Amino acid sequence: MIKVGIVGGTGYTGVELLRILSQHPEVNIQAITSRKEAGMSVAELFPSLRGKIALEFSDPANTELDKCNVVFFATPNGIAMQQTKFLLDAGVRVIDLAADFRIQDVSEWEKWYGMPHACPDLLVEAIYGLPEVNRDKIRVARLVANPGCYPTAVQLGFLPLLETGIIDTDHLIADVKSGVSGAGRNAGVHTLFAEASDNFKAYGVPGHRHLPEIKQGLSNIADRLVGLTFVPHLTPMIRGIHATLYAKLTANVDLHALYENRYVNEPFIDVLPAGGHPETRSVRGSNFCRIAVHRPQDGDTVVILAVTDNLVKGAAGQAVQNMNLMFGFHETLGIDQIAQLP
Amino acid sequence: MIKVGIVGGTGYTGVELLRILSQHPEVNIQAITSRKEAGMSVAELFPSLRGKIALEFSDPANTELDKCNVVFFATPNGIAMQQTKFLLDAGVRVIDLAADFRIQDVSEWEKWYGMPHACPDLLVEAIYGLPEVNRDKIRVARLVANPGCYPTAVQLGFLPLLETGIIDTDHLIADVKSGVSGAGRNAGVHTLFAEASDNFKAYGVPGHRHLPEIKQGLSNIADRLVGLTFVPHLTPMIRGIHATLYAKLTANVDLHALYENRYVNEPFIDVLPAGGHPETRSVRGSNFCRIAVHRPQDGDTVVILAVTDNLVKGAAGQAVQNMNLMFGFHETLGIDQIAQLP
Amino acid sequence: MIKVGIVGGTGYTGVELLRILSQHPEVNIQAITSRKEAGMSVAELFPSLRGKIALEFSDPANTELDKCNVVFFATPNGIAMQQTKFLLDAGVRVIDLAADFRIQDVSEWEKWYGMPHACPDLLVEAIYGLPEVNRDKIRVARLVANPGCYPTAVQLGFLPLLETGIIDTDHLIADVKSGVSGAGRNAGVHTLFAEASDNFKAYGVPGHRHLPEIKQGLSNIADRLVGLTFVPHLTPMIRGIHATLYAKLTANVDLHALYENRYVNEPFIDVLPAGGHPETRSVRGSNFCRIAVHRPQDGDTVVILAVTDNLVKGAAGQAVQNMNLMFGFHETLGIDQIAQLP
Amino acid sequence: MIKVGIVGGTGYTGVELLRILSQHPEVNIQAITSRKEAGMSVAELFPSLRGKIALEFSDPANTELDKCNVVFFATPNGIAMQQTKFLLDAGVRVIDLAADFRIQDVSEWEKWYGMPHACPDLLVEAIYGLPEVNRDKIRVARLVANPGCYPTAVQLGFLPLLETGIIDTDHLIADVKSGVSGAGRNAGVHTLFAEASDNFKAYGVPGHRHLPEIKQGLSNIADRLVGLTFVPHLTPMIRGIHATLYAKLTANVDLHALYENRYVNEPFIDVLPAGGHPETRSVRGSNFCRIAVHRPQDGDTVVILAVTDNLVKGAAGQAVQNMNLMFGFHETLGIDQIAQLP
Repeated sequence: MIKVGIVGGTGYTGVELLRILSQHPEVNIQAITSRKEAGMSVAELFPSLRGKIALEFSDPANTELDKCNVVFFATPNGIAMQQTKFLLDAGVRVIDLAADFRIQDVSEWEKWYGMPHACPDLLVEAIYGLPEVNRDKIRVARLVANPGCYPTAVQLGFLPLLETGIIDTDHLIADVKSGVSGAGRNAGVHTLFAEASDNFKAYGVPGHRHLPEIKQGLSNIADRLVGLTFVPHLTPMIRGIHATLYAKLTANVDLHALYENRYVNEPFIDVLPAGGHPETRSVRGSNFCRIAVHRPQDGDTVVILAVTDNLVKGAAGQAVQNMNLMFGFHETLGIDQIAQLP
Repeated sequence: MIKVGIVGGTGYTGVELLRILSQHPEVNIQAITSRKEAGMSVAELFPSLRGKIALEFSDPANTELDKCNVVFFATPNGIAMQQTKFLLDAGVRVIDLAADFRIQDVSEWEKWYGMPHACPDLLVEAIYGLPEVNRDKIRVARLVANPGCYPTAVQLGFLPLLETGIIDTDHLIADVKSGVSGAGRNAGVHTLFAEASDNFKAYGVPGHRHLPEIKQGLSNIADRLVGLTFVPHLTPMIRGIHATLYAKLTANVDLHALYENRYVNEPFIDVLPAGGHPETRSVRGSNFCRIAVHRPQDGDTVVILAVTDNLVKGAAGQAVQNMNLMFGFHETLGIDQIAQLP
Repeated sequence: MIKVGIVGGTGYTGVELLRILSQHPEVNIQAITSRKEAGMSVAELFPSLRGKIALEFSDPANTELDKCNVVFFATPNGIAMQQTKFLLDAGVRVIDLAADFRIQDVSEWEKWYGMPHACPDLLVEAIYGLPEVNRDKIRVARLVANPGCYPTAVQLGFLPLLETGIIDTDHLIADVKSGVSGAGRNAGVHTLFAEASDNFKAYGVPGHRHLPEIKQGLSNIADRLVGLTFVPHLTPMIRGIHATLYAKLTANVDLHALYENRYVNEPFIDVLPAGGHPETRSVRGSNFCRIAVHRPQDGDTVVILAVTDNLVKGAAGQAVQNMNLMFGFHETLGIDQIAQLP
Repeated sequence: MIKVGIVGGTGYTGVELLRILSQHPEVNIQAITSRKEAGMSVAELFPSLRGKIALEFSDPANTELDKCNVVFFATPNGIAMQQTKFLLDAGVRVIDLAADFRIQDVSEWEKWYGMPHACPDLLVEAIYGLPEVNRDKIRVARLVANPGCYPTAVQLGFLPLLETGIIDTDHLIADVKSGVSGAGRNAGVHTLFAEASDNFKAYGVPGHRHLPEIKQGLSNIADRLVGLTFVPHLTPMIRGIHATLYAKLTANVDLHALYENRYVNEPFIDVLPAGGHPETRSVRGSNFCRIAVHRPQDGDTVVILAVTDNLVKGAAGQAVQNMNLMFGFHETLGIDQIAQLP
């Protein structure tokens, strides 16, 4: 059993972490902090947890997070970077679900996130927590930057193509659709039910914060700077990411076999049979990423379809997968639930 | 470990049974039959189960269900009654999720279900599988009639009031709202997304098949014939039952204490703090029934709010709860998942 | 052509007024005010109006509303009562879509709305704008209090029963379900898509602001004080009110004929054939109220089903119906659109 | 006033035609046929039309469609081609909302639609009913092939780029999302609410029937054979098409000005201000197509966003727009309704 702390547990990644960690056999949740809701019972805010978690939100100032083995940050961007050094120095390992440690280029980060970075020196040791790419580094990491929801789906989708160098990397296209929970629990008018329901729209086409993260990840995989057009869309569903990825083939390979082979040992990547179309609900509430590969009309354009649950593999589930790796637990422990369908 | 068979697993109660049973530590699923889909992989029909269940649907004619310890019927009404005698004779216990054994009055059953009953003699020994009422009888039952989704919520809501005899039992009102999955996976035009979405309607006001089941249950609890107006409504959500129950009080008691005391030992009944309003998503995917009691403006009308997931406590979860009781497992084993919120 | 002003047009009743009035053949919209959005093009806030309305939101301080023939208040509660006297004195007629003039009992109003009333003297001449009850008074009114969405549906549903005195008026029950737009465009966390979608809940059971308005209306119709239990519910759809009403019959009449006769000349009340179940989408975007009457199992409980679009007959459409009456236009002018189905 | 007949009015394009035509000031609906529902009142099947249309569905065999000025086919594919010659010979003009006359290459049509074409000779005179391309031909056409919903959005989106020849036409990408009503009212399990709600998926990636129609249209506009990857997606909303289109620029032009100039005189095409993101609800129930143009990060990839209501501009509304052109009415007559928002 390890002692776990959560900083900032009132959002959707927070409640999802609680759902997963409270059922995890090796975890003892020590504290969950919230400046705003300090003193409120967690189960009052999230009635789904009634009878399952006895904790109250605690004031961060009165919470001994340095007694934990690991602390998750489920905070807005800019919080984790202020507290991580203290925790690391105390021997606590840190998993940040926000963006503070995802981008290695400090000036790029500051441009997109609109604030100075509080601890650029720690960026060097932060490991990008995509197990399918960085598994061994994660095992020994003190500080893990948990990937964003869009970046997870897009990187897992393009990965085998980029590793094998069989596509034109200058013109990658990622047309990605996200459920509304991706906007978080503090969202505004545009995520009201009466606005977002029975509606569909793109947003952030000129530029979205996940763009530099995705480009960095794809470029690392490809070992060269890639060109990417990334268009996110707001979809009237609660959970789910559906990435539709396009690239121009530069070589002729068995695409389905390529994906199956690359992911055969990955516990959470499921390559569908040839001709398949993954649907987001097939991973709702689960840590799976399901992928299908198509080459329509045998042309030179490859189409990848990849689905995840943005709150699980795209956030809390992947964070626990990273925790499992860091503490030597079985990688799937506590995150092997079956998706809820219908 | 017990050997479990499922008859008719292609509907929503079937896939939900599979989700629960495949994760149950004491269960070995031996077979799942489907005349129509025999030979198809279960995971092909339900991609959420990919990597979790290796079974194929088997032809009932070639399936040795009599080798099981228990068989679940997740079939349309009228199937279980034709096969139950054979199974019971073979020493197999039976849990029917359809309506074949729910109503003790054969002519009433035949009137509402439009067919002759195949084995009225077995009705006598069938136990109505509502653990909060019949726990001890369920433990030793060979044949359990798993309650309907509407009847479960309505009975659990009215139970403490009827047991204590503090309401006018001649004019009970049950205004109940159900998610669309309650209509099943074979439903027709009215349950299409483009028909049922962004829409709300009552149906079956002149009479619904669950009416006699609810009246029987409430009358048994009250120990007298009750009068009930039952109005079901189709609600644009996938899962969930919300029962809003009305009765006229004939005595002055602490209603909240009454409910808390009655349900204090029930593992799956959660009485909210006074003034609460349960929401269906707080039980989505879980076996809980959450209940709140109100007496608006201190008048003589009591209002009960009760929510369940129609596919879990209203069907598959309650069936497994019954199975746990029948085989001496802990009552919550394998059905203690936390609801998925958001 | 009349000159029309709208105060506070940035909410859902505002945009719905704009949709209707901009297509009304006898209306010239002079101004639409918004303190917060002054200077912004209406079509920028509501892209559905691009190419249809050239107006900008104007600062109320700079807007000559006293030059209008009629002014609609689509404001939060408490605004209209501060400006109405000035407008009436200037010869402008006023239709308030908020609650300022709906309740005749000032102390009751102040209790529920939590503020002192600014002009109790005007309450005397305010006409409650339910045309099916007050048509003749509305024609000559200077000040119309447009009914709330819940009160419209509940009163139209109970009306024929109360007028004829054939029910027990001490125990009326109104179980009403509303789409999320009823909470307005400024709503908070509970009306986010990720909270309200795939979810259903009651709220305000101990007491809701529409309760005194409904009781006042029903009591006026019945000519005696009625007893009412009112339970509103939040339903995962954008628009629509579904009222399910229950009462105990005290006389034996042909209920269907009663409703058909009462409403035969009402242009916006549609009594369904016997046995019908109205659905909210059948009135989506239209000014209709569709009603069905049931007497389940020929018992002594009558069940009324009534549906409206909360933004049309429950708000903006009814306001324009009142305007039509006040200015001698055909009652249906500009509000006879067909509901959008699917 | 012209006499209008509708063949096959029980689907979604049928009820939408009825909604529009019954409010059209120059139209007299003579008959609406349905083999299956003959004798049933139209308003019984579609309660939104109660009080608005007195017609019954009539048996095609007993319906004198040859007395009409124009007949709309809102039938499954393969019906119109069997009756069109008879009607044309009788002097009736025909607008087919199905696919029978959309594709000029007979063998291509037969491959995708799986049946022999009944009247290839009529294909020559059939005019593809996209007014923004073929306005003058439509005015004098006897036979109009109304475009499909996907093809309308994709062609209107790519049109200015192709006409000016400033993109690589070999690698066009159309990632298109459709509401569920696009699948029609007879759809199956995959379009049930409990399947399609809270879910998102691509389908038909290997090939979709609208692919050859789109390729033909784009190739005609470009005056050369284009290469196109078309991926349709099923989106949990009732109405709406959102096309996200990608192409590689081969010249440097002011893209926003290009679109504004091309569409400045088009009554139903609305080019958003630069940087805009159209949402489907902004055209819900209206005949508009709203378009935005982006060039992310000033790269060489252009991104076009185009939204329509699949049942209006994508079907019934465009059909009436074509009728208006054919009969010399104002092009917007009867189809200038404002979208319903929220």
